Amino acid sequence: MEPDSKNTDLIRLFEPQSVAHVGASARPAAGRFNFTEYLVNMGFRGKIFPVNPKYKEVLELTCYPSLESVPGPVDVAILAVPAPRCVQVLREVPAGKIRFAVVHTSGFGEIDKGDLEAEMLQLGRAKGFRIVGPNCMGIYSQRGRIGFWQNQWEIVDTPGAVGFASQSGGHAVNTVMRGMDSGVHFNKAISLGNQLDVSINEIVEFMGNDEAIGVIGIYVEGIRDGRRFLEIAKQITPRKPIVVWKGGTTEEGKQAVLSHTGAMAGNERVFEAAMRQAGVLVVDNMHLMVRMLRLLQPPFFLPGGRLAIFSPGGGNTVNVSDLFSAVPNLSLPRLAPETMETLKGLLPEENVDIRNPIDPGATGFLVMDKLVRAVGREEGIDAILILLTADYLSNIKSEENRLLAVERISTGLSRLSREIGKPIYILMRQERQNHEDIDRYRRMIVTKFIEKDIPWVDGSFKDAAEVFGLLAEYAGYVARSKARTA
Amino acid sequence: MEPDSKNTDLIRLFEPQSVAHVGASARPAAGRFNFTEYLVNMGFRGKIFPVNPKYKEVLELTCYPSLESVPGPVDVAILAVPAPRCVQVLREVPAGKIRFAVVHTSGFGEIDKGDLEAEMLQLGRAKGFRIVGPNCMGIYSQRGRIGFWQNQWEIVDTPGAVGFASQSGGHAVNTVMRGMDSGVHFNKAISLGNQLDVSINEIVEFMGNDEAIGVIGIYVEGIRDGRRFLEIAKQITPRKPIVVWKGGTTEEGKQAVLSHTGAMAGNERVFEAAMRQAGVLVVDNMHLMVRMLRLLQPPFFLPGGRLAIFSPGGGNTVNVSDLFSAVPNLSLPRLAPETMETLKGLLPEENVDIRNPIDPGATGFLVMDKLVRAVGREEGIDAILILLTADYLSNIKSEENRLLAVERISTGLSRLSREIGKPIYILMRQERQNHEDIDRYRRMIVTKFIEKDIPWVDGSFKDAAEVFGLLAEYAGYVARSKARTA
Repeated sequence: MEPDSKNTDLIRLFEPQSVAHVGASARPAAGRFNFTEYLVNMGFRGKIFPVNPKYKEVLELTCYPSLESVPGPVDVAILAVPAPRCVQVLREVPAGKIRFAVVHTSGFGEIDKGDLEAEMLQLGRAKGFRIVGPNCMGIYSQRGRIGFWQNQWEIVDTPGAVGFASQSGGHAVNTVMRGMDSGVHFNKAISLGNQLDVSINEIVEFMGNDEAIGVIGIYVEGIRDGRRFLEIAKQITPRKPIVVWKGGTTEEGKQAVLSHTGAMAGNERVFEAAMRQAGVLVVDNMHLMVRMLRLLQPPFFLPGGRLAIFSPGGGNTVNVSDLFSAVPNLSLPRLAPETMETLKGLLPEENVDIRNPIDPGATGFLVMDKLVRAVGREEGIDAILILLTADYLSNIKSEENRLLAVERISTGLSRLSREIGKPIYILMRQERQNHEDIDRYRRMIVTKFIEKDIPWVDGSFKDAAEVFGLLAEYAGYVARSKARTA
Repeated sequence: MEPDSKNTDLIRLFEPQSVAHVGASARPAAGRFNFTEYLVNMGFRGKIFPVNPKYKEVLELTCYPSLESVPGPVDVAILAVPAPRCVQVLREVPAGKIRFAVVHTSGFGEIDKGDLEAEMLQLGRAKGFRIVGPNCMGIYSQRGRIGFWQNQWEIVDTPGAVGFASQSGGHAVNTVMRGMDSGVHFNKAISLGNQLDVSINEIVEFMGNDEAIGVIGIYVEGIRDGRRFLEIAKQITPRKPIVVWKGGTTEEGKQAVLSHTGAMAGNERVFEAAMRQAGVLVVDNMHLMVRMLRLLQPPFFLPGGRLAIFSPGGGNTVNVSDLFSAVPNLSLPRLAPETMETLKGLLPEENVDIRNPIDPGATGFLVMDKLVRAVGREEGIDAILILLTADYLSNIKSEENRLLAVERISTGLSRLSREIGKPIYILMRQERQNHEDIDRYRRMIVTKFIEKDIPWVDGSFKDAAEVFGLLAEYAGYVARSKARTA
């Protein structure tokens, strides 16, 4: 029996009117997932039904002995009880009572208990509910005010356009956490676990059609129907970027996948090549995923790979040259003779380099502004990157003046980028590590950049080069698809 | 004329009894190098002679109008005046007055003023002084209490065994700064600039023979005599690790090198292969350099590449498997059946993975201790890696208890490592970024690890895998050289 599309429209999963939490506890163990508390803290606007025969009340909410005793229909039932008990609950629930069972519990497919999974799926089909998981964290939805981790209330008032779907619960939690502090604004996130029923393909298709979502990030270990995934992706990527982080790309990784979500990972190289052809950006770690989501949330710049880079310090220009030119799709073009003349006129003769990367030495705001304008006029340059170290703020004496400097840099960059009509990215570095002041300066800069929508990239030069290589790859793909449809 | 070895023993460069600073200023511009101030702040024990005809006093020290008017001999004369003036100063200085000229000034070879460089070299040969630079920062020496950056007084009371030599001044400054906050204890560092006279080969040979130095890091853009470098390296690497970061490995990078230090970079692949054969570890960025120096300062562990990794979270085990098994020299061996039985007995059935990488779920100290002991007994495992996130401390309520937990983890790890007779490394991560509390927790953990000599690796899993790949490479090299000489 096919899922009833009316009863199972995924938007009701992300924006439920009622949520039951089977396995809620009035005395939850430390570190235990407490979905009821998350809902309360996030200001969930629908009905919350804790379910547990042991308690009368959980967090001042009436607690029900069973799912069927909950009054009225339940859009989402979160199941956080041992695996056999999950199945029992779903056996007992009347048909039509619930729309979605989000099965948090692990210990199904990943440790060879296929029988329980098969029965759950059968129950879902028979009673008309869909299953997310098992072995998953469930749903984050900014508009739905529902979440899967204790900190997510911090971002529930911040609208965003990022959609993220992850087979791994840990990666879902960590990607959202890592993203939320660095300006990735999530709209919806889902941890899918074993994909017994609701699959990555279904979610990607849904997010592709969801106008609230402008970029889709995916962590996946196994895709059941790769061909279908590619078909769906091809429909989306010309207008909306998709970033895929694929786990289980090596033999060792595949073994770990098998034991993690029970999925079978296939031939990686072939699939990865097919994904690239479908305009999907492929990454291999969470840091890169978060950087890409930040730079690809709308409205985003999509420059080609011809970069001009300002990196003070001769050693830096060498390192930047080496690392950026080693990445496909990127080049650091020679500047035109007249641009070089302009730069020469703006800089002292010694200890600077007016080639690309450009070492401007220790330069003030006003000169930097002129340098960037001069380079911005070059037709052969798609984007300008400027190295900024948090350590730089230690040259400024008071906290007030540091804040002013950061404000001035941000405002200046916004205006400059608008006026030259090209994106300006900050390569954000922190030379001194584990240093209280410099940590604080970094947070000060990042906070302001997020507030002012200044695009920035953290990590090493190598990390940054990867980011710009992917942006250029996607720019090329989008240009080719436009040319085809024109 | 060959340099007079008696007059120019390099130890006098690193432990001078008198330093003159030509170009000292009583009113230094912000951001300008202030070598006199550095010497004062570092508690330099010899004589400090500021030289500048414009001032009578600099920082309450008598300021001299010229180098020749300084009383007595000068071990190190730092020259920070424009290039033509540098040559003039060296023309005027009497033979035998100075042992070393550290020429900070840039604008010599790197912008085609070969005449000035040639004359300086000639003057040095004729008058019996050696030249460091030009276009360099000079010397850091912990025992000599001399430095090249405003912050280096912070570490001058901390003995160390790390030697670092860099052609780039910026990389010298940043590597020392980055290192000093993360437990790299420097003994001597030198920025060599254009290597007009004192060369990287000479410094490496010196550091190779220097018993105070246990590991040598090098940033180099061009080696004049590569064959000689390899000969020297081969003498050192069987007993002391050398880590080389080579700039100018791409065509673009070579162009940048030419304009940075005027050096000619050669055929990289050939040279890199030769370096590896000579037991030299090759890195391509500063972060990796700092990680290697931290882990290779004596006394250090040198495990082979057969690793057991504890990484809570199924997604992490997949990612760790993928990234570590992609690195040459590394493997994550299957554990023996009896070890797996032991692990099974210690862990709950669900949501854990007892293969390698091992996902222990949320585990307390006592269970972790037992798990590590069980794995430590495996003969086929060279080292144990444990993932620890700074975020973990947010589960602990008071700052006092957090400190206690960190203390307990550190003490526990030390004892455990000693008892199982194998190194235990912490893979240090921070999931929430730009978060004041978690930044503080990270500093708290890192500070304790440095104090207790717990080996730790920061960065992504990919970064960590690179580190362990290099350690295993060097372990193999050392084992082979021992076998040859046995």
